[in-house]
Amino acid sequence: MSAIDYLVFAPHPDDAEIHLGAAMAAWSRAGRRVVVCDATDGALASRGTVAERSREAAAAAEILGLAGREVLGLPDGGLNEADPAQRDVLVAALRRHRPRAVLAISAVARHSDHIALGRLAERAVKMAALHRLLPEAGPAVPGLRLWWYEAELPLPSPKFLIPSTEADWQAKRAAIACYGSQLARPDGGGPATSIATPAFLQWIEARGRAWGFQAGSDYAEACDGSEALRVGDLIGV
Amino acid sequence: MSAIDYLVFAPHPDDAEIHLGAAMAAWSRAGRRVVVCDATDGALASRGTVAERSREAAAAAEILGLAGREVLGLPDGGLNEADPAQRDVLVAALRRHRPRAVLAISAVARHSDHIALGRLAERAVKMAALHRLLPEAGPAVPGLRLWWYEAELPLPSPKFLIPSTEADWQAKRAAIACYGSQLARPDGGGPATSIATPAFLQWIEARGRAWGFQAGSDYAEACDGSEALRVGDLIGV
Amino acid sequence: MSAIDYLVFAPHPDDAEIHLGAAMAAWSRAGRRVVVCDATDGALASRGTVAERSREAAAAAEILGLAGREVLGLPDGGLNEADPAQRDVLVAALRRHRPRAVLAISAVARHSDHIALGRLAERAVKMAALHRLLPEAGPAVPGLRLWWYEAELPLPSPKFLIPSTEADWQAKRAAIACYGSQLARPDGGGPATSIATPAFLQWIEARGRAWGFQAGSDYAEACDGSEALRVGDLIGV
Amino acid sequence: MSAIDYLVFAPHPDDAEIHLGAAMAAWSRAGRRVVVCDATDGALASRGTVAERSREAAAAAEILGLAGREVLGLPDGGLNEADPAQRDVLVAALRRHRPRAVLAISAVARHSDHIALGRLAERAVKMAALHRLLPEAGPAVPGLRLWWYEAELPLPSPKFLIPSTEADWQAKRAAIACYGSQLARPDGGGPATSIATPAFLQWIEARGRAWGFQAGSDYAEACDGSEALRVGDLIGV
Amino acid sequence: MSAIDYLVFAPHPDDAEIHLGAAMAAWSRAGRRVVVCDATDGALASRGTVAERSREAAAAAEILGLAGREVLGLPDGGLNEADPAQRDVLVAALRRHRPRAVLAISAVARHSDHIALGRLAERAVKMAALHRLLPEAGPAVPGLRLWWYEAELPLPSPKFLIPSTEADWQAKRAAIACYGSQLARPDGGGPATSIATPAFLQWIEARGRAWGFQAGSDYAEACDGSEALRVGDLIGV
Amino acid sequence: MSAIDYLVFAPHPDDAEIHLGAAMAAWSRAGRRVVVCDATDGALASRGTVAERSREAAAAAEILGLAGREVLGLPDGGLNEADPAQRDVLVAALRRHRPRAVLAISAVARHSDHIALGRLAERAVKMAALHRLLPEAGPAVPGLRLWWYEAELPLPSPKFLIPSTEADWQAKRAAIACYGSQLARPDGGGPATSIATPAFLQWIEARGRAWGFQAGSDYAEACDGSEALRVGDLIGV
Repeated sequence: MSAIDYLVFAPHPDDAEIHLGAAMAAWSRAGRRVVVCDATDGALASRGTVAERSREAAAAAEILGLAGREVLGLPDGGLNEADPAQRDVLVAALRRHRPRAVLAISAVARHSDHIALGRLAERAVKMAALHRLLPEAGPAVPGLRLWWYEAELPLPSPKFLIPSTEADWQAKRAAIACYGSQLARPDGGGPATSIATPAFLQWIEARGRAWGFQAGSDYAEACDGSEALRVGDLIGV
Repeated sequence: MSAIDYLVFAPHPDDAEIHLGAAMAAWSRAGRRVVVCDATDGALASRGTVAERSREAAAAAEILGLAGREVLGLPDGGLNEADPAQRDVLVAALRRHRPRAVLAISAVARHSDHIALGRLAERAVKMAALHRLLPEAGPAVPGLRLWWYEAELPLPSPKFLIPSTEADWQAKRAAIACYGSQLARPDGGGPATSIATPAFLQWIEARGRAWGFQAGSDYAEACDGSEALRVGDLIGV
Repeated sequence: MSAIDYLVFAPHPDDAEIHLGAAMAAWSRAGRRVVVCDATDGALASRGTVAERSREAAAAAEILGLAGREVLGLPDGGLNEADPAQRDVLVAALRRHRPRAVLAISAVARHSDHIALGRLAERAVKMAALHRLLPEAGPAVPGLRLWWYEAELPLPSPKFLIPSTEADWQAKRAAIACYGSQLARPDGGGPATSIATPAFLQWIEARGRAWGFQAGSDYAEACDGSEALRVGDLIGV
Repeated sequence: MSAIDYLVFAPHPDDAEIHLGAAMAAWSRAGRRVVVCDATDGALASRGTVAERSREAAAAAEILGLAGREVLGLPDGGLNEADPAQRDVLVAALRRHRPRAVLAISAVARHSDHIALGRLAERAVKMAALHRLLPEAGPAVPGLRLWWYEAELPLPSPKFLIPSTEADWQAKRAAIACYGSQLARPDGGGPATSIATPAFLQWIEARGRAWGFQAGSDYAEACDGSEALRVGDLIGV
Repeated sequence: MSAIDYLVFAPHPDDAEIHLGAAMAAWSRAGRRVVVCDATDGALASRGTVAERSREAAAAAEILGLAGREVLGLPDGGLNEADPAQRDVLVAALRRHRPRAVLAISAVARHSDHIALGRLAERAVKMAALHRLLPEAGPAVPGLRLWWYEAELPLPSPKFLIPSTEADWQAKRAAIACYGSQLARPDGGGPATSIATPAFLQWIEARGRAWGFQAGSDYAEACDGSEALRVGDLIGV
Repeated sequence: MSAIDYLVFAPHPDDAEIHLGAAMAAWSRAGRRVVVCDATDGALASRGTVAERSREAAAAAEILGLAGREVLGLPDGGLNEADPAQRDVLVAALRRHRPRAVLAISAVARHSDHIALGRLAERAVKMAALHRLLPEAGPAVPGLRLWWYEAELPLPSPKFLIPSTEADWQAKRAAIACYGSQLARPDGGGPATSIATPAFLQWIEARGRAWGFQAGSDYAEACDGSEALRVGDLIGV
């Protein structure tokens, strides 16, 4: 059974890159095995087809050095944090990949799927430890820890920041740039969305810079969690 | 496509009046077009029939000068904040009315439907912007902003108060009085409810006065929101 | 119709004992009628069978002096806080038992069922007051008050502590000890769980002691609530 | 050494009545010995003289059935929560009166003295237990518990409400009415203040009614605290 | 007596520009009279002299179109939020200028003076209404409202954002640029400070952009307050 | 200039051991240089003399392997978080020791000095970076980070836990045991204090165990901070 280091749950292809791309790039470069599970295929997106988006996601995965990426097949626009069946789709992913740390998008968000996914993941990490739940999905995974990465609304008081170098951020930019179907076109065409504007990419840069200033680094990405971190040594923290 | 100014989501006929009646009266008088969407027909109420309640709601709408009122047909006692299908009923209402601001009852509440509706609305305002979601319900509505009005429990720290004049409050009182089926009868008869008591109307008055004192006005209604307000000028705020 | 004093909702047999056992023992000894409603039969537990667990629960009930105990039959691993049908199973229990105070496990928890049950109970206590909801389950119960008892994660800032004597705590220990199928075996065998370790019982002791120090008593259990307590006299509080 | 039941710290004569008058009346009537310590003599008030205010305070104390009342002599407008010397004036009062419970005005307030007094009291209750601090003020008083009563701004989420009967509230009204120098005159004369308006008394009534509705009583006063309450039995709480 | 519109309290010359410069520029351009009161002269700054800093502040005031600017003469590095004497220096400023709205730096900050000033201002706005406090400083000013602008640490959940245009931000940049003594020199010389680095100006830009994205504008500045805003109409808010 | 790794501010000799002893032992054993600065000499303690306490503190320092320990000479019972002069005593200590990380007792506490010290330290870490403040105390120390360790009241939601082994905890126990003057005597004699009881040591054990269960370790100590942590890699966190 091949265990990985990080499993990152994202609601749609491109969300993991937008909000956690620099950290994933840094982890991969440091030899960590990072897998992204996109809960949905993004079929509801105002722009692009599922096939386009799938190719874009693969290209971004390559740039970030991901050890794997998969779509979980939950309905775009239909994530439901209270539905045990959806939760168990995440449990199965945790059983398949057996990560050492889990991340999911924060529920401090506007999009219905974003609100739901972070909460589904919170429940899945505990339920993955129960032997009699979904035994067909593989042996139980005990002791998983979950962290939430910032979504489209500012995290009020993030527990921690992940500092990024200029190189990490360059990889993030390149990974986001793979999603040509979602971003503003040079000709300005396509239906209006909150992402397909020049202001959107400026915001990603600005938010990263602003957190970076707090983190004492070039850039940073912000995270939160429902439980306390475990820190043995505070030098450099 | 006839756009309106305010769309107010309420769980049952009478909730919008009880908690936001004075603001709606003031807006209407100032020329704003206000529409109330009652999520349910109130069939579960301990007193009154759906038909009675519908007539009462129409009378109240007249007093408040509403530009429209409709029942969304969701099940009374059965609102489910995590259900994408219920959310989409609200999305469709937003597409029909295309408001410039949206309000819904706060989830700081006791009643199951109240807890659920504010959260359904939070998700609906974002999802209404997605072109491929419910295209049959009309073109996407981007950039909607949602605010929650106080329900039966006190809002811990409301972001803003809507000040009311004595005249606004008089309209609110008159609108509430339309709901004869729900309120205490002179003979004291009918099944006991939390509303059908003299103390209930006293509470509405008292709460409005207490907020009014904080707002520097005769009365006020309290609101909250998950996002920051946007205020250009602070004089008089 | 035989009214009781306390109805305690627990997600699985053993949770009420683990988190609220000393208070229940104290209340029973003082002549209060306490009933535990286990939402599920615990079929998903990694250890033990439903039949074993049922016998264990009965033995624990005896030790605590419970006036009653029942399983509500909701699916283990499948509690859904937003599902009105599940909520109404709790409403029916409230109608059957007509308690004077209600407790449920806190949603500050890791286990999916724990997160869900406290929220289901919050909705059920209000809905139990509606005459036209579930009339076949018995007359409406107005004015119920709900409190949450601490679950497996620390309550950030509990509203109140229930002080326990050494005798109360001894009863709690004995009640927990009934659940032989769930706890660590002398031979260390059986599948690994978060409960079946010596550290688990040490934690129960330690947590009780730590709260006890804050409460000025030998031990204590911590509770929270969404509404303010009503306290007439502050001597000894 | 004559111990009392309740010691209530107030910043100026009239604040204890305005914000906690009904509870004090109820406690006195039930046989509790209640003492009010006014931190300052109110010399800075826009209306009235110190002598007038002192007579008014004595009259109000009589109506409320207080066991004692005294002015601590701290400077009006000059309370400083961080000043150990001011704190020790409160410590001395605690040593003199040896109460079983302590209350002070909440720091959720606008007035500088209100903000400061609640914090001074928080520190004084602990320091009163230190034998070598102020031994000349009497033996140490261990284990004091402090609660804050609501001030001029709404408490965001009070830990508890003290329910009041119509009779308790009538006593509160009468006690407040003693402060003729501070309240609106029939002729409307005197310098403008936030208290000397008809709206002020209406607010006191309204706030009490609004909390009363939440408390299931005619009126109520709201309190908070930095620590958890200790509650043995939840029936009627 | 010449009343103004906005009085902005800042701890040191340059803080108002850095954190609220765009809003002040916009207000001035719209005809509002804005006065900045720098609590200290900045003598403790690692770079620059008091005389230099004073000239820089005057130049910045000109660019922002301020109606006035003054130094209050409190000790740099020595602000003390609990000191009534320091508070009264602010009260006197409020009496002199009689503003319609007041702003001060947020206490969510690292610098000791920043932490203190926001709290001094909170107390001063109320105390300015007391006729017998500092009568020599001018007639009482009732009903002042205070808002805090974001300091060097991110506001966890700002109550409101003040949207800025590109032109507002250009004025802010120009005003900050006046403080040559504080900023990074082309030659990189001078003692190290948190401000005298290229990263500092990048952070100001980035933070403004990030809030702007949330505000639906080019840039924005974030504010908070201890009380609710008063908003009559929600269109465009 | 000899830089150290950790500087730990404590209000009185014994507080650092009681609340952070295991972490200090672990850091020392791992080769970190840890210095404790006791703000006061503990002269106000109900038991023991300053001389006794000083010897006890030295013995505890030896057990914990501290690189240094000193008394700052601030007045016991007289810490004042708003006093710039007291703050500067801490600044001077930071300049002398030039630590890489700073800890201070949490202001979530009962004792007046505990409430004050954490806030003094918060201000001192920033002010230590100002070149013109206290130049005689040594060159400025930029970029210090401060964390608060839990005091006598439970931290509501600690940002991180420091896991401890049984050996770390054994060292903590031994260090606390050095304070014979403060702890319960075998004969039960001496004035009553909150520390000199068997329950006090039981509480220290219990609290450590309870946090340890959350941290997945034998014991743990809890910390908080006003800023986000900086975490590069989440494996094992």
